[in-house]
Amino acid sequence: MKFHIVVQVLPRRGILDPQGKAISDALRTLGFPQVDDVHVGRHIVIETAAESAAAARASVQSMCDRLLANPVTEDFVISSVDAA
Amino acid sequence: MKFHIVVQVLPRRGILDPQGKAISDALRTLGFPQVDDVHVGRHIVIETAAESAAAARASVQSMCDRLLANPVTEDFVISSVDAA
Repeated sequence: MKFHIVVQVLPRRGILDPQGKAISDALRTLGFPQVDDVHVGRHIVIETAAESAAAARASVQSMCDRLLANPVTEDFVISSVDAA
Repeated sequence: MKFHIVVQVLPRRGILDPQGKAISDALRTLGFPQVDDVHVGRHIVIETAAESAAAARASVQSMCDRLLANPVTEDFVISSVDAA
């Protein structure tokens, strides 16, 4: 079966997020002074074959541990696992 | 009121996604040959003040149009607007 899995990888809270800081500064300059804070991460959509939704989730967990997220500075969340 | 708004910015379908291609190639090499395709976008969390959820959504829509997404190559989705 084919699955469509969505993962969010975000900088861990408290760790410097220069991209988020750059965007919040730019937004304030562009006329959005009400912006308090911005965090930027990656939104990754993986299309993969697996025997079941549980197997798809386990394999994506392992992909995140090994390649997609930096375990020192980032957290990841598997936000959805849908049969395609 | 404070709002916590989540936006996903993804490369438009059919437009070259070199980061997604690099990740899918790396995953296959790392022992995940079942991966068909990967798309990578940005996951942006904005903390902002607004008078209502509708006003917060409208202001984030305008931020996306003006700064956060490239209208030629990317699509964005405001996936949640929560009172903080």
